[in-house]
Amino acid sequence: MTETVLVVPGDGIGKEVVPAAVSVLDAVADFEFVEAEAGDHVKAETGEALPDETYERAAEADATLFGAAGETAADVILPLRQAVGSFANVRPARSYPGVEALRPETDLVFIRENTEGVYKGIESEIDDGVTTLTRVITDDASQKIAEYGFEYADENGYDDVTVAHKANVMRTTDGQFLDSVAAVAEAGGHDYEEALMDALAMHLLLRPEEYGVVICPNLAGDMLSDLAAGLVGGLGLLPSANVGEDNALFEPVHGSAPDIAGEGVANPAATILSGAMLLEHLGYGEEAATVRSAVESVLESGPRTPDLGGDASTEDVTAAIVDEL
Amino acid sequence: MTETVLVVPGDGIGKEVVPAAVSVLDAVADFEFVEAEAGDHVKAETGEALPDETYERAAEADATLFGAAGETAADVILPLRQAVGSFANVRPARSYPGVEALRPETDLVFIRENTEGVYKGIESEIDDGVTTLTRVITDDASQKIAEYGFEYADENGYDDVTVAHKANVMRTTDGQFLDSVAAVAEAGGHDYEEALMDALAMHLLLRPEEYGVVICPNLAGDMLSDLAAGLVGGLGLLPSANVGEDNALFEPVHGSAPDIAGEGVANPAATILSGAMLLEHLGYGEEAATVRSAVESVLESGPRTPDLGGDASTEDVTAAIVDEL
Ligand SMILES: CC(C)[C@H](C(=O)O)[C@@H](O)C(=O)O
Ligand SMILES: CC(C)[C@H](C(=O)O)[C@@H](O)C(=O)O
Repeated sequence: MTETVLVVPGDGIGKEVVPAAVSVLDAVADFEFVEAEAGDHVKAETGEALPDETYERAAEADATLFGAAGETAADVILPLRQAVGSFANVRPARSYPGVEALRPETDLVFIRENTEGVYKGIESEIDDGVTTLTRVITDDASQKIAEYGFEYADENGYDDVTVAHKANVMRTTDGQFLDSVAAVAEAGGHDYEEALMDALAMHLLLRPEEYGVVICPNLAGDMLSDLAAGLVGGLGLLPSANVGEDNALFEPVHGSAPDIAGEGVANPAATILSGAMLLEHLGYGEEAATVRSAVESVLESGPRTPDLGGDASTEDVTAAIVDEL
Repeated sequence: MTETVLVVPGDGIGKEVVPAAVSVLDAVADFEFVEAEAGDHVKAETGEALPDETYERAAEADATLFGAAGETAADVILPLRQAVGSFANVRPARSYPGVEALRPETDLVFIRENTEGVYKGIESEIDDGVTTLTRVITDDASQKIAEYGFEYADENGYDDVTVAHKANVMRTTDGQFLDSVAAVAEAGGHDYEEALMDALAMHLLLRPEEYGVVICPNLAGDMLSDLAAGLVGGLGLLPSANVGEDNALFEPVHGSAPDIAGEGVANPAATILSGAMLLEHLGYGEEAATVRSAVESVLESGPRTPDLGGDASTEDVTAAIVDEL
């Protein structure tokens, strides 16, 4: 069976790093790649950043590889996450030998709830200059992310599971989140620690080695995973998966980087590592491992793009990775 | 005129660091100190963590110095911030010569909105396992914090002002926040940058030296200021002010630290530096500067508590600071 992988390069360096990742995937698996459009450049032409066709193709594909979008990022990625039915945003943040990092001992995976919290989009201006947003936390979504998080920790050999929250202030909503996590943990016999999200931000900087899998409400996961990018040297190396019941979307954590777009020097590692997550998700565990170790060996001693202090191009780095496969 | 300063030691190390700060304040100014109770130990006795009397005394005092509370922290500090009419939470985070820091070049001041956002406490369980929280952002509170932030930057010589937000997701509420800040900046001719709070979390780790004053919605300020504590070596050195129109409350950013409470080895620096902020607020700018430089010189070459690698007691450190005044 040939799986269909939708590729959506998007804007800016998305157009450079997605083809790089496709060439790596092409070297290890036999996917049918279909391309679709999204982003600022589409909005400029048609008035809509995410064409219906792209949404539907993502919903129908076996998996999607997304690059980045510029100003329209939220208009593109939030619906695309819905298109694939994603409930979990998986964001590993680890350092690599040979890459300078503030905290080389970092090996974290954020399991971010991907459907609710402040992302529900329920807002209004209830009076002149008085605005509200409704944050939603449900038992269903919270149990689902907890189940996914504990299972991920077990399968990937992480002993420490931490649950981020701010239930001392958001008593009912994050109280619900904690209760749901507790119910799942109890049922499955899982151990974990609760951590206030503010204190956790500090502890991740001071003692990252004490943490492994971090299960988070939506916005906390957004912030804490970017913070972790700072611990390992920036966004150029961070892949992510938006996992649904039977579909998923993979994307680098970085954005469209308009400052370097078009120069051919974007670091393709985050997108290629997102491709490795895609391989794993579709059942190609061995191929995923091969891609990961090729990226690692090039990061350690191969050509580097300028963000890592080198002067190699996206193509040079990609070719070196393909060579290692 | 003798100002009345309410002191509320609270729980745990609050009972050790507040007396330390009072002895420093006593050495440089002529305040009338009044003591009041709050915290876990009060709740255990009376069922309420914050007695009405403490609330009223805080409202009536010229300023309050608070230590820390344990499990009841939110029940104590959130009403106390209201008692003094605080709209701005001011949290400087800087490193000190001689103190190990992940990012010694850090010199940040978070100006956190202190009345609304997710802290409004409007929550409900609208159906079984379905909970909501209403986040509130108003033009009034946003303009007020912006005015305070720009003025603080001018008066304290910070060139860079950054406004944290997540308006790509919280479009109406953080959109309001940004509009209000923009109106204030326009009226006063102030320059600033907007920064998405997730990206900012990363950039503060990678390039703290590019930031100065950071104006934040309430919860973002809570998280980002704790993150900054990680950059400068932990919470033991971070003071804060909760500033109102004509009253204010000062507190260390750290908590009650039950693990070391009662041992007499808590680092008093954060509370003494909070005392310096109190002095400055009440018009004793020179005395505030004297206290700050005494703390700096002891941090650089005096006795140290165990959190900074020393084996001195709270009393030793406090005595050394008083000696330097
Ligand atoms: C673009 C934005 C809507 C998005 C998010 O907040 O999820 C981004 O920050 C991310 O982390 O993928
Ligand atoms: C105790 C808690 C309510 C408080 C807050 O969230 O403001 C604390 O984290 C702080 O930063 O002072």
